[in-house]
Amino acid sequence: MIILGLDPSLSCTGWGVIRSEGSRIAHIANGQIKTDAKAPMVERLHHLHDAVRSVLIAHSPDRAACEEVFVNKNPQSTLKLAQARGSVLAGCGANGLKVNEHSARLVKKAVVGTGAADKAQVQAMLKILLPGAEIVGADAADALAVAIADAHLSGAMSIRKRGYR
Amino acid sequence: MIILGLDPSLSCTGWGVIRSEGSRIAHIANGQIKTDAKAPMVERLHHLHDAVRSVLIAHSPDRAACEEVFVNKNPQSTLKLAQARGSVLAGCGANGLKVNEHSARLVKKAVVGTGAADKAQVQAMLKILLPGAEIVGADAADALAVAIADAHLSGAMSIRKRGYR
Repeated sequence: MIILGLDPSLSCTGWGVIRSEGSRIAHIANGQIKTDAKAPMVERLHHLHDAVRSVLIAHSPDRAACEEVFVNKNPQSTLKLAQARGSVLAGCGANGLKVNEHSARLVKKAVVGTGAADKAQVQAMLKILLPGAEIVGADAADALAVAIADAHLSGAMSIRKRGYR
Repeated sequence: MIILGLDPSLSCTGWGVIRSEGSRIAHIANGQIKTDAKAPMVERLHHLHDAVRSVLIAHSPDRAACEEVFVNKNPQSTLKLAQARGSVLAGCGANGLKVNEHSARLVKKAVVGTGAADKAQVQAMLKILLPGAEIVGADAADALAVAIADAHLSGAMSIRKRGYR
């Protein structure tokens, strides 16, 4: 089972692909899709869509996952994020891909063991779970964490038994 | 100049294409892109993207326009709308199309003459401005209104002189 994790945002969308077999996971690839802040919104959204399509073509995932959207107190930030997300998800739809959504808390719980884990803890655990993987940045790390959580939460693997299902 | 007006929403995205030459406008086509409320979000977003691309291919607009997004008090509604919008705008970006954004108030003012106009007034004015056009629904009407406002506001035409530029 190939799982694509996504961390959509307008300026930098992270993505990470893992293979999940039974209780084992392995890193396949990760990356970040950056858009030019000076470019028109429409162009940036198209770039995200196009780049996600390229990732799908390159890695043919069986399933995708992303975090549930965080509704920011600033409506303009929520709007930007949601538009980017819409563009990225539309790209996944082109392949008829199922996209699971998990809360940030559940992702951290699945990867680190506690929903209150900070970014450093998540990244430290990624090094253990995906040894040798060169992770290109914080957004790619978040995307890999979502992919791992999805593998775990979907019962395809069990990192540890924590009894939260 | 061919102008595409868009009224994006997840359940039903309206679109309308007009031709603007000097001070004259003419209706070319209008339609509504509906998505199945029971289908997964990703599929609905992809359908919007794909259908907008088909409209672009069919009518080759020189420019597009949509209303500035209305940030709803309900964050979940804003999220749905913004995701749909992101998918639709990404579709426009594929053609390198410029998309102007106008406030709802400015659209009403450009079409009817007052920013406080109601939907019935806008639709009545559309019948006068685009005689003979068969408008398929309220969302298509909104999209045509945006296209007319864009033609007007961009100085390509002048419906009436109201001195608001």
